[in-house]
Amino acid sequence: MGLSRSKVALELDRLTDLGLVETPGLARSRGGRRSHLVSLSAGLRFVGIDIGATSVDVAITDGELRILAHAADEIDIRQGPVAVLQHAVSLVEKLRADGAAPQLHGIGVGVPGPVSQREGAPVFPPIMPGWNHFPVRDTLSARLGAPVLVDNDVNIMALGELHAGTARSVRDFLFVKVGTGIGCGIVVHGEVYRGVGGCAGDIGHIAVDESGPTCSCGNTGCLEAYFGGAALARDAEATARSGRSDMLAERLRATGRLTARDVGEAAAAGDPAAVALIRDGGARLGAALATLVSFFNPAMVVIGGGVAGLGHRLLAEIRSVVYRRSLPLATGNLPIVLSELGGTAGVVGAARFVSDSAFSTLAEADPRPRRTPGAVP
Amino acid sequence: MGLSRSKVALELDRLTDLGLVETPGLARSRGGRRSHLVSLSAGLRFVGIDIGATSVDVAITDGELRILAHAADEIDIRQGPVAVLQHAVSLVEKLRADGAAPQLHGIGVGVPGPVSQREGAPVFPPIMPGWNHFPVRDTLSARLGAPVLVDNDVNIMALGELHAGTARSVRDFLFVKVGTGIGCGIVVHGEVYRGVGGCAGDIGHIAVDESGPTCSCGNTGCLEAYFGGAALARDAEATARSGRSDMLAERLRATGRLTARDVGEAAAAGDPAAVALIRDGGARLGAALATLVSFFNPAMVVIGGGVAGLGHRLLAEIRSVVYRRSLPLATGNLPIVLSELGGTAGVVGAARFVSDSAFSTLAEADPRPRRTPGAVP
Repeated sequence: MGLSRSKVALELDRLTDLGLVETPGLARSRGGRRSHLVSLSAGLRFVGIDIGATSVDVAITDGELRILAHAADEIDIRQGPVAVLQHAVSLVEKLRADGAAPQLHGIGVGVPGPVSQREGAPVFPPIMPGWNHFPVRDTLSARLGAPVLVDNDVNIMALGELHAGTARSVRDFLFVKVGTGIGCGIVVHGEVYRGVGGCAGDIGHIAVDESGPTCSCGNTGCLEAYFGGAALARDAEATARSGRSDMLAERLRATGRLTARDVGEAAAAGDPAAVALIRDGGARLGAALATLVSFFNPAMVVIGGGVAGLGHRLLAEIRSVVYRRSLPLATGNLPIVLSELGGTAGVVGAARFVSDSAFSTLAEADPRPRRTPGAVP
Repeated sequence: MGLSRSKVALELDRLTDLGLVETPGLARSRGGRRSHLVSLSAGLRFVGIDIGATSVDVAITDGELRILAHAADEIDIRQGPVAVLQHAVSLVEKLRADGAAPQLHGIGVGVPGPVSQREGAPVFPPIMPGWNHFPVRDTLSARLGAPVLVDNDVNIMALGELHAGTARSVRDFLFVKVGTGIGCGIVVHGEVYRGVGGCAGDIGHIAVDESGPTCSCGNTGCLEAYFGGAALARDAEATARSGRSDMLAERLRATGRLTARDVGEAAAAGDPAAVALIRDGGARLGAALATLVSFFNPAMVVIGGGVAGLGHRLLAEIRSVVYRRSLPLATGNLPIVLSELGGTAGVVGAARFVSDSAFSTLAEADPRPRRTPGAVP
């Protein structure tokens, strides 16, 4: 490890004092002096909270970030931070009620908007009214009695893919979340790259076609004006009303609204208009990704988020555009794959984010008390 | 430095043996024990070679990368590697003939195409016929008797900006070279990011407008089909022939061809058609950069290369598009500036590239003899 014996001993003492590692005794002799065993504490517990536009997922993990308990509920992010965070806390408390996590060693949180790491709060998040500068970190830390770290949900999901998903074999990759909106997590040399202002990867409003429709952001032809859960729902409803799809029209009559899931199910049932919606959207997303692949030359692109549930029809369209349009050198060995983690990328990534910090000696050196790891009963 | 006294002494001995540092004696007493002075060897000499499509620049620097001697010539990269490298070697020999560099401690080289670091050779470089897999590193190392490192010219220029240009105050930035073609150097946390296949930043063929003209690469609407030295010369000649600019027509009659420089001079003299060419090109480049700024959230964008000589008219157009089109969070504190280094970014960056390696203990640990630094008479 490039460290002296005394430095290692000192660091182990520190981690033991914090309750992060245990030294259960001596190993069996292999002929020489018997080694001291060191393991992650069996009682280590991290919490991952993944707050989306319409859902909150919560998980408790052990020190190896295996999920011990998982709960999810529908929410509306527009209810504001007090209601949504209360909902998250009550889910955590419910999971802890069975005694699985008497102590919490850290809580990682993902939210669907840009986050200031310094403040531990969202900053100017476009789809989170009422959350601007709301102290998410300090609120949750006070309520749950453990150190909290907050980041953008897409960065958190990218960390989840790095830890437990398809991307665990690579160090430089892009994780593209297609949910209500579209965002991208950028991993450079095994670490999330956040950019100088913390908003790197915010690709929902890059221009796909300057002469395209006006977007909610005020510009024209943004990626999100063409694709993502919100655009897909809008286009599906227009398709249903125009008489181009009996299947979508029937669903719209039945439920009063359409979602990306309706489009996916109609496409799976062979509805040509629904298939066309997926192909058009995939082509737009593919065009944007082709640019990013040429620029960043990643080892892998992982597609996740709710709309990724559209599956291989979407993937085929994205691949077709990227492989045709990006530099041959950049796509030669480039896998473009769907996330295998499904709904758990966010909670695993959030737990990974805070556990990385808990084990880091830098966190210990940090004078800000709220970032110092420590077990609280 | 976080190192023990004995480790520092060991490392200094190694660097002294290699001729990289000197220990000229003891410092004046400041009351306590007198410190040992350590300085970079006065005799340290690095060479930077910047090979462009139509020119080769060579410089000899001291250990602090100050340029001691500089020479440049016009070449044609299509003459092939044997002729061009011979030209570069003779420039170096000419500079050494005055006795300024009896020993060379390392040679950095930039070439206008993708480079395999492992091979020390260009791989499938589009504008360098005959150079594919040609052993540039080993050829120059054998001819000049010193370790050689080769990289893409844009990465090298980005390093130059990091070392001595406007970007020396930041750690995450983009360097955009607009020469015959267009490329981008990506600096992450103070280091050049090359991508998994070494072709990150190759933005000349990203799509600006899918319905645009066919590019030499076979795709349509690439950035380079709209802007860059080659596109600008083509459009200027078309403008001259169409009768829309007397000034450009006159220059074309006089010289038989037009270049980006002609457009710049005509614009400076008030020719409206020349101004329009710069504004159109700047708008296209700005649109591409707007996407990259939203994605990468850099601390700075530096514009360099020959066409950057078009100056503030070009810069104004790029800024106008990026500031309107990128995310407000990403542009809030974003300077977009012209390179201050002009023609020397390449040679300084090349010298920096090889000197970083010479001082790195990793280079010493590398078993490949050609990468081990050492002075050769």
